[in-house]
Amino acid sequence: MIPRYSRPEMAEIWSAASRYRIWFEVEAHACDALATLGTIPKAAAATVWEKGSPLLEGWSDSDTAKVEAIEAETRHDVIAFLTYLAETVGEPARFVHQGMTSSDLLDTTLAVQLDRAAELLLADLDRLLAALKARAEEHKNTLCIGRSHGIHAEPTTFGLKLAGHYAAFSRCRVRLQAARAEVATCAISGAVGTFANIDPAVEAHVADKLGLLPEPVSTQVIPRDRHAAFFATLGVIAACVENLATEVRHLQRTEVREAEEYFAPGQKGSSAMPHKRNPVLTENLTGLARMVRAYVTPALENVALWHERDISHSSVERMIGPDATVTLDFALNRLAGVIEKLLVYPEAMQANLDSLGGLVHSQRVLLALTQAGISREDAYRLVQRNAMKVWEQGADFLSELKADPEVPLEAAALEACFDLGYHSKRVDEIFRRVFA
Amino acid sequence: MIPRYSRPEMAEIWSAASRYRIWFEVEAHACDALATLGTIPKAAAATVWEKGSPLLEGWSDSDTAKVEAIEAETRHDVIAFLTYLAETVGEPARFVHQGMTSSDLLDTTLAVQLDRAAELLLADLDRLLAALKARAEEHKNTLCIGRSHGIHAEPTTFGLKLAGHYAAFSRCRVRLQAARAEVATCAISGAVGTFANIDPAVEAHVADKLGLLPEPVSTQVIPRDRHAAFFATLGVIAACVENLATEVRHLQRTEVREAEEYFAPGQKGSSAMPHKRNPVLTENLTGLARMVRAYVTPALENVALWHERDISHSSVERMIGPDATVTLDFALNRLAGVIEKLLVYPEAMQANLDSLGGLVHSQRVLLALTQAGISREDAYRLVQRNAMKVWEQGADFLSELKADPEVPLEAAALEACFDLGYHSKRVDEIFRRVFA
Amino acid sequence: MIPRYSRPEMAEIWSAASRYRIWFEVEAHACDALATLGTIPKAAAATVWEKGSPLLEGWSDSDTAKVEAIEAETRHDVIAFLTYLAETVGEPARFVHQGMTSSDLLDTTLAVQLDRAAELLLADLDRLLAALKARAEEHKNTLCIGRSHGIHAEPTTFGLKLAGHYAAFSRCRVRLQAARAEVATCAISGAVGTFANIDPAVEAHVADKLGLLPEPVSTQVIPRDRHAAFFATLGVIAACVENLATEVRHLQRTEVREAEEYFAPGQKGSSAMPHKRNPVLTENLTGLARMVRAYVTPALENVALWHERDISHSSVERMIGPDATVTLDFALNRLAGVIEKLLVYPEAMQANLDSLGGLVHSQRVLLALTQAGISREDAYRLVQRNAMKVWEQGADFLSELKADPEVPLEAAALEACFDLGYHSKRVDEIFRRVFA
Amino acid sequence: MIPRYSRPEMAEIWSAASRYRIWFEVEAHACDALATLGTIPKAAAATVWEKGSPLLEGWSDSDTAKVEAIEAETRHDVIAFLTYLAETVGEPARFVHQGMTSSDLLDTTLAVQLDRAAELLLADLDRLLAALKARAEEHKNTLCIGRSHGIHAEPTTFGLKLAGHYAAFSRCRVRLQAARAEVATCAISGAVGTFANIDPAVEAHVADKLGLLPEPVSTQVIPRDRHAAFFATLGVIAACVENLATEVRHLQRTEVREAEEYFAPGQKGSSAMPHKRNPVLTENLTGLARMVRAYVTPALENVALWHERDISHSSVERMIGPDATVTLDFALNRLAGVIEKLLVYPEAMQANLDSLGGLVHSQRVLLALTQAGISREDAYRLVQRNAMKVWEQGADFLSELKADPEVPLEAAALEACFDLGYHSKRVDEIFRRVFA
Repeated sequence: MIPRYSRPEMAEIWSAASRYRIWFEVEAHACDALATLGTIPKAAAATVWEKGSPLLEGWSDSDTAKVEAIEAETRHDVIAFLTYLAETVGEPARFVHQGMTSSDLLDTTLAVQLDRAAELLLADLDRLLAALKARAEEHKNTLCIGRSHGIHAEPTTFGLKLAGHYAAFSRCRVRLQAARAEVATCAISGAVGTFANIDPAVEAHVADKLGLLPEPVSTQVIPRDRHAAFFATLGVIAACVENLATEVRHLQRTEVREAEEYFAPGQKGSSAMPHKRNPVLTENLTGLARMVRAYVTPALENVALWHERDISHSSVERMIGPDATVTLDFALNRLAGVIEKLLVYPEAMQANLDSLGGLVHSQRVLLALTQAGISREDAYRLVQRNAMKVWEQGADFLSELKADPEVPLEAAALEACFDLGYHSKRVDEIFRRVFA
Repeated sequence: MIPRYSRPEMAEIWSAASRYRIWFEVEAHACDALATLGTIPKAAAATVWEKGSPLLEGWSDSDTAKVEAIEAETRHDVIAFLTYLAETVGEPARFVHQGMTSSDLLDTTLAVQLDRAAELLLADLDRLLAALKARAEEHKNTLCIGRSHGIHAEPTTFGLKLAGHYAAFSRCRVRLQAARAEVATCAISGAVGTFANIDPAVEAHVADKLGLLPEPVSTQVIPRDRHAAFFATLGVIAACVENLATEVRHLQRTEVREAEEYFAPGQKGSSAMPHKRNPVLTENLTGLARMVRAYVTPALENVALWHERDISHSSVERMIGPDATVTLDFALNRLAGVIEKLLVYPEAMQANLDSLGGLVHSQRVLLALTQAGISREDAYRLVQRNAMKVWEQGADFLSELKADPEVPLEAAALEACFDLGYHSKRVDEIFRRVFA
Repeated sequence: MIPRYSRPEMAEIWSAASRYRIWFEVEAHACDALATLGTIPKAAAATVWEKGSPLLEGWSDSDTAKVEAIEAETRHDVIAFLTYLAETVGEPARFVHQGMTSSDLLDTTLAVQLDRAAELLLADLDRLLAALKARAEEHKNTLCIGRSHGIHAEPTTFGLKLAGHYAAFSRCRVRLQAARAEVATCAISGAVGTFANIDPAVEAHVADKLGLLPEPVSTQVIPRDRHAAFFATLGVIAACVENLATEVRHLQRTEVREAEEYFAPGQKGSSAMPHKRNPVLTENLTGLARMVRAYVTPALENVALWHERDISHSSVERMIGPDATVTLDFALNRLAGVIEKLLVYPEAMQANLDSLGGLVHSQRVLLALTQAGISREDAYRLVQRNAMKVWEQGADFLSELKADPEVPLEAAALEACFDLGYHSKRVDEIFRRVFA
Repeated sequence: MIPRYSRPEMAEIWSAASRYRIWFEVEAHACDALATLGTIPKAAAATVWEKGSPLLEGWSDSDTAKVEAIEAETRHDVIAFLTYLAETVGEPARFVHQGMTSSDLLDTTLAVQLDRAAELLLADLDRLLAALKARAEEHKNTLCIGRSHGIHAEPTTFGLKLAGHYAAFSRCRVRLQAARAEVATCAISGAVGTFANIDPAVEAHVADKLGLLPEPVSTQVIPRDRHAAFFATLGVIAACVENLATEVRHLQRTEVREAEEYFAPGQKGSSAMPHKRNPVLTENLTGLARMVRAYVTPALENVALWHERDISHSSVERMIGPDATVTLDFALNRLAGVIEKLLVYPEAMQANLDSLGGLVHSQRVLLALTQAGISREDAYRLVQRNAMKVWEQGADFLSELKADPEVPLEAAALEACFDLGYHSKRVDEIFRRVFA
């Protein structure tokens, strides 16, 4: 996570002030529940809120610095915070954190942060989906060549290309909702998860207040397979980002140039070559996708903790928690912007469609030949023989076929195979499948 | 995937015979649909089944070799198969594969294979879940020390440990069902997914026959984010395998020895040291988990194909398709066996519980002190001071506390803090949350 | 590792017969050293060679099956082999493996296998380097457009492109030699590496006979950072394979078509579209590169073994040992073949060079303007202004510049900026740097 | 890279001020070379240094902000910097960056940063190696049990354990030197690496001034296999960090407790359990190692750029450049501190050695039996039979052996097998191999 690739909304979730504020809320809600249970005085719980809330509302960098100074001595971040909080809350502070262990606080807080991050990412996906849908509708029938292996195959439409990406990101949305539910759990179960020193009602109350579900069984920690599934999902989304980014990069190639990233007035493509207009945003997205994917492996390695927990996962999460969510949030927004403003060149698409002398109709000819009673193998040989003349000598495919004495089709039948509209006749139907 | 770590049921899914048989079924079902549409003669479709079925039923290695010989010339696996099939089916063979592209066949076949693999993996999970549940019930109240950071923390029960893993693998089951649904789609949409040369009714029919859903929008291929999500899920399950395997390895350490893998009569632990009984199965599982996790990254890299497809994903899938599913299937079964036969030593657990001179009760003492009106900071200092004497001089914790003039608790109050049963009082409740 | 992507020479290194043969050699050489030390009778060592060699020379699948049957009972592969060997060697067999531990045998054998694999890979690199050098020399001055971001930048030569890849693979050769030296060590140091039960002279003798160096300090095993460095190096080489494969794929795109993979007579590009000629070999290499890279992470995870060793690394190495070396060996040979037979189209390169109406000379104009006294910012603005007319309206760059009243250069000075030869004038010098 | 896991020396290398300063130096040295060649006026080069140096020396956050403001318009970082520099340098600024492309600047700067980072990392390794050597010498003959599979195997010494890690980090040092040499190259070769617009003498001069070697052949960029090899090497080092950290974590387990991380006065191990002393530093190192390893994959993915370059690698490097080096630097220093201050408990080591009733001598008994003429298989059976009694019934191994009528050894011969000193007799020799 670096400022260059961060949006403030997401970065804020991971700020020290946010973290401490959630810590406070967990502790204060827990106090309420403990007071209801009669474990601590109701007045104490009230005082915690009353004196603590203003502190956390007005939390500043100097507060953070003071907590860190305490941590430098205690070498324990939670104890440092509780000590600092006690200075403001006063005597009732001794009732805070009763029967809890640090991980109750840390893991529940991480759940809140990941839950909020997922909410932003879902909004990002919505923006991207809206852009893809709008542009897909716009270019539903904009014919262009479909390519497999980078080689012209058969015609498709630009809208259909975008519809495919829309479908992929729709699946990502479903996956992210599932992944969000995975991590949105609250554990306040004590030192090794037995609730020996704390009533499960506390967990239930805090979970309810924070919009989480109670973790059915925790050790000292919330089990890390939940987080692994979450970060793996971000990795899959990032892979979809790369997929669409790669499409744009290809379309903007000088030789293809069917679409281009928007090029702002004042923008400079190259310090040395003033003529350049480069797909730098989608190239950038390709790199960012690599990073989000890279965080999947350490998240998977984090699952196998020793016995009821070791703390090896913690440093990983301090890094990939912000790194993965901030980077993906930035990437999704950048990608949405690219799609929203993408310059599309239908004339160039048509020119490319025309460039192969009709070769893109080879399958229709093949099918027409087999329909006419020729074996598949012979039909293939006939079509390939004439296609290679186009490929190697720049011949016109239709003329070659007409001139081939072994080809048993009439001119009109051959010409009928060269109708571009034939290829877009199912687009409406596919769109209904995708956007319904 | 190597024989050493394979079970025949799963390996069979990936055999050449299985693959060709599914290929045939896809083509033959497609012929039925084409015949219904009137595109090809009904008799042709019937002949395909009639002559093709016996060939595929009796498929042998020599058939495979013959297909491969044709492929050596055509350099195209699907064309090779169709050519070989035509030898048996005869003239009606020219109606086979009408309007389809190779990927229609290959991708739908992969979907069938992954769907079947998922079915086996779900059965594996069920076996493991049953074992975990049975052993958890058996040791629901078997007290043992809970450890964080490898250090004794507070008591828990062995059943609770297993319940945690049960919950994790239950989540894995849900994840795998979702991942299975992701990949169980059928695409028969032609060269670039436009259905230009094939009616969507063919796709619908084949999908229905094979237990798949039609892919809403395909390019030349089924989009690879589906497969990425599938393999990522296997990676998460593998991480959970490692987690449980690591627990067993720790429990079997010479100094801990609270549980052991079953050691068969005749088994030899070491070629040099006849006294050894090593947790080799769970160590092996740790390694296998690394492999299943390793396949996640190439699956993620496979998503970004060029335009309507390139074939870079294919070699990856030829390897990780079998490698990931066969390895995980083997691992889950090995793990289930380990749990089913695990030797558990409650006396050793009790001995370890007793070994720290009562230190594991430090939190209860801390809480009792704060309840008695001492500030949290002072209470912590008092407890830590006496705990360190136990740690460093082997003193008895309870005696030290009684002898400390600053500790304001009566002997009886202190002794009440040393009750082990206190720690298992919520086990029933947690079990209900997990196993309900 | 699957047969489809295997070459027999490399696969043979990992066969059961090869492994058992190396096991035998390690044991028999160790016997010689033990006999020299007087630890065992010289006659015993002689008998081991005399009776064992024919067994191993004529090793068949049935021998393997018999060893595996013993292993099924003992659950220990080394003990199974030694038991089987003893049947042939007879009574002197009891002197075999004296003071050794299984890992002495297994790790030294793996070292021999990786050493041999590295030797093949070095030969593969040599073939590829020779191909790259020959084709680079052939096209040293074949002008083509250089592209950054997929956009035409400035002219370069096709030979220079290949020279860059030659340099990369030359570096790979150096890296592989270093990585080979890393893993080519022999450890025969006993149960925990203390040589308590075996004289270091045995290790020295076996190492010498097998072309290895003694491991300075082993635990029970050769430390796995050596293997991690080895597999990481294979990953870097695979990345270079992908880089060159990606270049070929781009050059073969329909719209670019400056080069093509050789297309064999009889080859079929597509089952549906007979006109297709696809870069399937380099796409395949892209996928294979993903796999070789994927093995790096488990190799890195293998380093942290518990205490003097655990066996978690073993299953990983049984898989990635063959998988990584066989796949990379196959890939390097496939890539060498692609380069050797690559179809290169200089006319297409020239056509692409000409396609941008002279825009590729924009930097030269920029430099000429600054040399003429214009500030860099103004010069950039002038050039970009005229370049955008070419880009957007298809204008001719030189004519636009001549017509721009703010451009202070004479026509001749402008025309001099449009000399293609200018861009290849340093090629000889660069070639000397690379191929010297 | 987060402040919590950063050391200022390393973080400073990646600061904006450092980067801009290196940028300036590259440009200013290039001006010198251009002036020497007569391409630009010598006075211009002198002015660049004269006016630019003070600016860069006194670079502040407000300078950075101003450059970023320009970048916000131009969307090009290098152009933004050059524009800002021009404000200070004045008219001669138009001679800056002549014939260069942005990557000449960026890639050479990255080389300088990685070179400096490597220098710090080498110093870190030296500190760690010194600590390991000192502690290894100190405990050269401190006997402790060696463990394979977590199970007691045979005695070793604590010094020997450390010597093994010393050897591993010595190899890391060699690897890092090689990796540093890989990335320490300078490319100033223009838009596509042809030197069309810039004399190679400029590159040679700048390389010399910055302590780099000229890149033999660049495209627009320095080839990324160099960086991949560099980051892969950091990953291998991180794996070695995890290996040693894991050893410490195991030794500190409550049941083992042969060594402990230093526990500072005032430190708190747990907010809930005042008795805890946890190996949090080495657990933290385990997590940090996961992160450094995670950066290897994106670095490998960065190698395959499109044609003469695309910019996908850039965002990756902006993140992993600092992340990998800062994290590893922090980890190596933390690890060195752990080793320097590690609390070692030889009495606990001896107690653990004694705990298995002599079982650790099983191999010596096995060897003595075979020396006495018993077949290996029978000897193994005899030893295992008696060992299992110890294992299962807590018997004394020596007594059992003496009482076994089938064991043909005299009491004295058996007792001689139980000499601990026997196991450390080669330690001096191994130390010479490692530390010589």
